[in-house]
Amino acid sequence: MTSSLIQRFVFAVIVISCSLHATAQPPRGPFVISPQVHADKKVTFRYLAPSAKEVKLGGSQFGAAQVAMTKDSIGIWSITVGPIKPDIYPYSFVVDGVTVMDPANVSFFPNERFKASLVDIPGETPLIHSIKNVPHGTVKYEYYPSVEGSTGSVVVYTPPGYDQSAGKTYPVFYLISGTTDTEETFFKVGNSNFILDNLIAEGKATPMIVVMPYGNPMARIAEQKKQPKPADIVGRDSEDAITRAKLFETDLVNNVIPYIEKNYRTINNRNSRAIGGFSRGGGQTLRTAFSNTDKFSWICCYSAYLSPQEMDSRYKKLVDNPTQTNKDFKLLWVSVGNEDFLYKSTVEFIDYLKAKNINHKSLITGGGHTWMNVKDYVAQTVPLLFK
Amino acid sequence: MTSSLIQRFVFAVIVISCSLHATAQPPRGPFVISPQVHADKKVTFRYLAPSAKEVKLGGSQFGAAQVAMTKDSIGIWSITVGPIKPDIYPYSFVVDGVTVMDPANVSFFPNERFKASLVDIPGETPLIHSIKNVPHGTVKYEYYPSVEGSTGSVVVYTPPGYDQSAGKTYPVFYLISGTTDTEETFFKVGNSNFILDNLIAEGKATPMIVVMPYGNPMARIAEQKKQPKPADIVGRDSEDAITRAKLFETDLVNNVIPYIEKNYRTINNRNSRAIGGFSRGGGQTLRTAFSNTDKFSWICCYSAYLSPQEMDSRYKKLVDNPTQTNKDFKLLWVSVGNEDFLYKSTVEFIDYLKAKNINHKSLITGGGHTWMNVKDYVAQTVPLLFK
Repeated sequence: MTSSLIQRFVFAVIVISCSLHATAQPPRGPFVISPQVHADKKVTFRYLAPSAKEVKLGGSQFGAAQVAMTKDSIGIWSITVGPIKPDIYPYSFVVDGVTVMDPANVSFFPNERFKASLVDIPGETPLIHSIKNVPHGTVKYEYYPSVEGSTGSVVVYTPPGYDQSAGKTYPVFYLISGTTDTEETFFKVGNSNFILDNLIAEGKATPMIVVMPYGNPMARIAEQKKQPKPADIVGRDSEDAITRAKLFETDLVNNVIPYIEKNYRTINNRNSRAIGGFSRGGGQTLRTAFSNTDKFSWICCYSAYLSPQEMDSRYKKLVDNPTQTNKDFKLLWVSVGNEDFLYKSTVEFIDYLKAKNINHKSLITGGGHTWMNVKDYVAQTVPLLFK
Repeated sequence: MTSSLIQRFVFAVIVISCSLHATAQPPRGPFVISPQVHADKKVTFRYLAPSAKEVKLGGSQFGAAQVAMTKDSIGIWSITVGPIKPDIYPYSFVVDGVTVMDPANVSFFPNERFKASLVDIPGETPLIHSIKNVPHGTVKYEYYPSVEGSTGSVVVYTPPGYDQSAGKTYPVFYLISGTTDTEETFFKVGNSNFILDNLIAEGKATPMIVVMPYGNPMARIAEQKKQPKPADIVGRDSEDAITRAKLFETDLVNNVIPYIEKNYRTINNRNSRAIGGFSRGGGQTLRTAFSNTDKFSWICCYSAYLSPQEMDSRYKKLVDNPTQTNKDFKLLWVSVGNEDFLYKSTVEFIDYLKAKNINHKSLITGGGHTWMNVKDYVAQTVPLLFK
């Protein structure tokens, strides 16, 4: 590339920024590196905003809810925090009160409501969610005929060697993310593919297919019909909420599972199907598994619960017959962090299972309702499945 | 779901927003719908920011570079624009001078530098990039051994029926996006998968595999080694730029192509390999194809060019022997919009090819250096490949 060509490309980028986006984004003069993770686990965050009055770092791991950043002479705001415990954390910048992603960072949190970037602080030895030099599986975006004529999308992990192992069949783990998450969140934030790659490479997990559906098919129907999306977090009455939960279950059982079993080399029986989920996805997991005892033997509930009232009323048959229930379910896992706002309700659910003599494995950890905890729970449960 | 459970979930979402992200994001009270595309092709954009002084809509298709929005009594800023010509457009909000994505919209533009959301205005009949009720291919995220011990990632489209057609082999189109784009941009912004699905369903395109590599392996190496990323858009001297272009080519030819041909059912000869790209990816396309005449027969250059100086010096053999060159390349496509800042240079390149008697197909359209144009160019060139 000649020097004049380089200058044209530089010019190009500036012009693209102006013409394509036509925003008040500052000119691209100084090249901002953010986040910069140092060897001592400290992290420097930077944000270019010469005319901003105040820029803060927002995130739960950086000392305070929001930490003030300072501006240098060319208008780059920065702060160095830490050392931070190795993990992957969401963060944002709060620029004159407006929450924004880090424009210099391509790692982001797929979500329908908030926008956050992700910072990955590596461990001294690679963590279980890190990309390591081991055989890698593939993550596939599939499109399938979903409820009410809509086209659904689902993300599917196939283990290393899947495409080379003609004839071999695999068990399937259906893994559902939370409210306002998308079908991408377990991949992009949960690093589910790298967790599976690493556990399989260590001989700890049975090679399996992981299917990550979208938890809110009602919103997708509205989107494809170009209707206003129904509010998924406020203003719901209970009938609407039950319809919605049922719609997810219908889509999973009638559309997703048949699509997967038609298009992938799956083992098609209840002992080779697991279901798990986080938050709303944990509730969907319990409801779907308890309503479809012919479909799943392995249940993983992360940071979620069902109320004793719902258990008594909707799953009476299961509750009243623990011998059969304990035969049916090879694993009923419930885990939650002791700082999770669902902690008390989840402990109440665990106590309920205990009182009703329903076999389960429970785990109380530190931490809150976070993807840091979810990754840990996935890494702890995947080795238990299909064994 | 009981009413009290709903309230807990509502509470949950608010608490997640506060605890996980700990930002100044406004409380989730009013449910914001944005963007809302109306039947008459007008679009309403909304952004909740009760304490902002000024919110504007940024984008190139909405009348002006930035359009002022107005605030209602509960703090939702909104504007209705249009009617807008059906297409997919990037846009942002400019909140007190800070450019942000639309937090209510999950469709975004993967990019290393800027953050933009995407609005899809449907046509009276579905456009070529729209999801239609036709058989769908699959989009796969693959991880492969890349340059300098790094792990590369590449996005791969396989056509409908690929997984059911054991034994059948396919030609491959290598498709490279632009500066600061990622390996996801041709999928997420370019809708390359739906364009292929639709062209194949209409019988216009040969079923093919499309491989979308990342254009900047030097940045990936730095990231994986936890080194500061090298500046990819400014401050490059020409030696650095050539090293960088060469590194991409090395990665593509030595790592990506062998990985794809090992793991997919490909037809492995130059007549069954095409290469194309946009902007920087268009330059990489021309350089890689001209330096590896044994590898590719089909070349698609979108909104990019090489200078006569570079052609004369680096590709003298090709230029001096047009008979052989015209035999080698079954397609050399160059297209550009007449508002593109690369328009004049690209026309100069087309004139150069003409003067040197090198066969090519050129297309001058309206529009600028945009993904609206790129999608059109992909849709126009894919039917020409492998025929």
